Amino acid sequence: MASELKRLAVLGSTGSIGRQTLEVVRALPGRFRVVGLAAGSNLDLLTGQVDEFRPRFVSYTTPGKTPSGCELITLEEMAAHPGVDLVVIATAGTAGLGALLAAAAAGKTIALANKESLVAAGGLVTATVKKGGARILPVDSEHSAVFQCLLGEKQPPRRIILTASGGPFRGFSPGQLASVTVAQALAHPSWSMGKKVTIDSATLMNKGLEVIEARWLFNVSIDDVTVLVHPQSIVHSMVEFADGSIKAQLGLPDMRLPIQFALTFPDRPHNASLPRLDWADVKNLAFEPPDMENFPCLSLAIYAGRVGGTVPAVLCAADEGAVELFLAGRIGFTDIPRLVERTLEKHSPVSEPSLDDILAAGAWARQVALELAGDGK
Amino acid sequence: MASELKRLAVLGSTGSIGRQTLEVVRALPGRFRVVGLAAGSNLDLLTGQVDEFRPRFVSYTTPGKTPSGCELITLEEMAAHPGVDLVVIATAGTAGLGALLAAAAAGKTIALANKESLVAAGGLVTATVKKGGARILPVDSEHSAVFQCLLGEKQPPRRIILTASGGPFRGFSPGQLASVTVAQALAHPSWSMGKKVTIDSATLMNKGLEVIEARWLFNVSIDDVTVLVHPQSIVHSMVEFADGSIKAQLGLPDMRLPIQFALTFPDRPHNASLPRLDWADVKNLAFEPPDMENFPCLSLAIYAGRVGGTVPAVLCAADEGAVELFLAGRIGFTDIPRLVERTLEKHSPVSEPSLDDILAAGAWARQVALELAGDGK
Repeated sequence: MASELKRLAVLGSTGSIGRQTLEVVRALPGRFRVVGLAAGSNLDLLTGQVDEFRPRFVSYTTPGKTPSGCELITLEEMAAHPGVDLVVIATAGTAGLGALLAAAAAGKTIALANKESLVAAGGLVTATVKKGGARILPVDSEHSAVFQCLLGEKQPPRRIILTASGGPFRGFSPGQLASVTVAQALAHPSWSMGKKVTIDSATLMNKGLEVIEARWLFNVSIDDVTVLVHPQSIVHSMVEFADGSIKAQLGLPDMRLPIQFALTFPDRPHNASLPRLDWADVKNLAFEPPDMENFPCLSLAIYAGRVGGTVPAVLCAADEGAVELFLAGRIGFTDIPRLVERTLEKHSPVSEPSLDDILAAGAWARQVALELAGDGK
Repeated sequence: MASELKRLAVLGSTGSIGRQTLEVVRALPGRFRVVGLAAGSNLDLLTGQVDEFRPRFVSYTTPGKTPSGCELITLEEMAAHPGVDLVVIATAGTAGLGALLAAAAAGKTIALANKESLVAAGGLVTATVKKGGARILPVDSEHSAVFQCLLGEKQPPRRIILTASGGPFRGFSPGQLASVTVAQALAHPSWSMGKKVTIDSATLMNKGLEVIEARWLFNVSIDDVTVLVHPQSIVHSMVEFADGSIKAQLGLPDMRLPIQFALTFPDRPHNASLPRLDWADVKNLAFEPPDMENFPCLSLAIYAGRVGGTVPAVLCAADEGAVELFLAGRIGFTDIPRLVERTLEKHSPVSEPSLDDILAAGAWARQVALELAGDGK
């Protein structure tokens, strides 16, 4: 048990990662004090969370009555507040970018579940983290795995191998892919996650965003990150070192494991509510290269990561727009990469972009993607 | 490149691990100076090694002419000499125990390839290492894997999972096992090693000795070490932590990889002569529980490790004797565990044994095993 309570702010507390973060907090009494909760529009759930955890600060984006005993502040104020030790950033899309930069500038420990902010603004975020003396602990299972494999290693990795389940449509033909439904795309074979990331997993865009995320988190080149399909999602990712040795991190696919690691690092407390891998159930771990041809989002993301500048921000925003259109039933599954690609083609990249450049590029890309869809694609 | 040369003594330089150690030294010029070479009776090879590496000290057990420019000293003197930084202990059987204790008392860094000394005298060795301020870096691929997985971890492992290839006779029936030949037993499916360890791999005694070795190297209970058969020998071993996270170390089965890690730790230099795992060649990693019934050496070793005292020394010496008899064609393959078991049954264990107790128990066990075999088993 820790000698003093870690004070948490959970940004995006009503989403999938936010709720699982609070499950971990509940399962490890005496370790944490939740001092801030921030949500979007799910005020019913937020109110329930406030009743249970009694935070000092709340934040939400839709009009509503502030729970008694709480102070309403902005996401940025919460992320930078001196009364907060660890900021969990689990907001959706690029909405959390301002809060991430505020936490970084304030030198916080940041448990980062939102990959889009790092993808869109990796250069800016890492510079701010360095200047502010902050530390990012990844919550994505793949990056948590890489982080765990790098513990105690003196030298940088030679190669990062991100594993991918391959999504629900691994092995599908182009014709099959063109006709998949929203319900099919939302049924991920191994991970239970939010809607946006589940669709991104089905298109492999999620893996592409993770390649860019890995590039920034671990200071490697895009070309030192490779993707390996591993349908069982037991090996969460691997690191190869200069001497040829490879380290991997394994476990059952349950987001509470990497969430807990980020919350309790460098401790690894026992948590009886978490599942454990039983080797009697594991007969085979399979690996295969990703299908770059039928899942072009992965190549698009690698391209965006290589070019850099405002291109990854455009990738993220175009994808956000396209996924919303798909979820609304307005475009087909294979229109998602098409829309992203056409938006990227129309973009004139800005290198070493400011925050304004990044936000402007994102807003432009979202608009363009929506227009292109309206155009009859 | 290291700023100063690490001064090595290689004990057992003409054996399989010794020769591969010198290969690594050759492949990484400017890192090491070989100041001592010790061999048994292979004076021809030793002379060649002396010509190449020009050590200050040599040691050998059979009569012969000391190479010019070299000083003949004992194994113990070489292991403890102030001019030596790192002692590679790659002698066969328990012959290296004195040298291991001398290196431990002198506070050396010890690259330990000889598991029998640690198995026979684990309590004594670890106490001497602690008192002398020495450090053991494991050379066995399994223990090197565990060591690598534990780097940077604050807490002790919850469980160590040693992988085993299962040997050449995995899946054999009792009848098939009874009739295997020496040539079949020497043909290991994935590792190229010395004769004794190859036979021990085929009986699973090697894995049993490794369980006891892990218990001492990583200060865990015997029951926190489990064995998992993994025929491809790609995953070299794993560690499970209290939070359920598992770390594994992977690579091609080539002893030069863990040897180099022990020699260069904490560096991981690139070595172009070492093979690298290509994931395009890895489709499946398979796992299954070990067959304790048809390979009773594993249970015998776990039993010996649990009882402790002089019992593991008896296990080692009885096995050494039995393997020699098998290699000489005097007993069958399934007589090896039978002979070890009958020797263990006849032994009256001494707890917290002195070095003399351990050596006496070993000599007694070897004698008893040979007598039992002569007795018509």
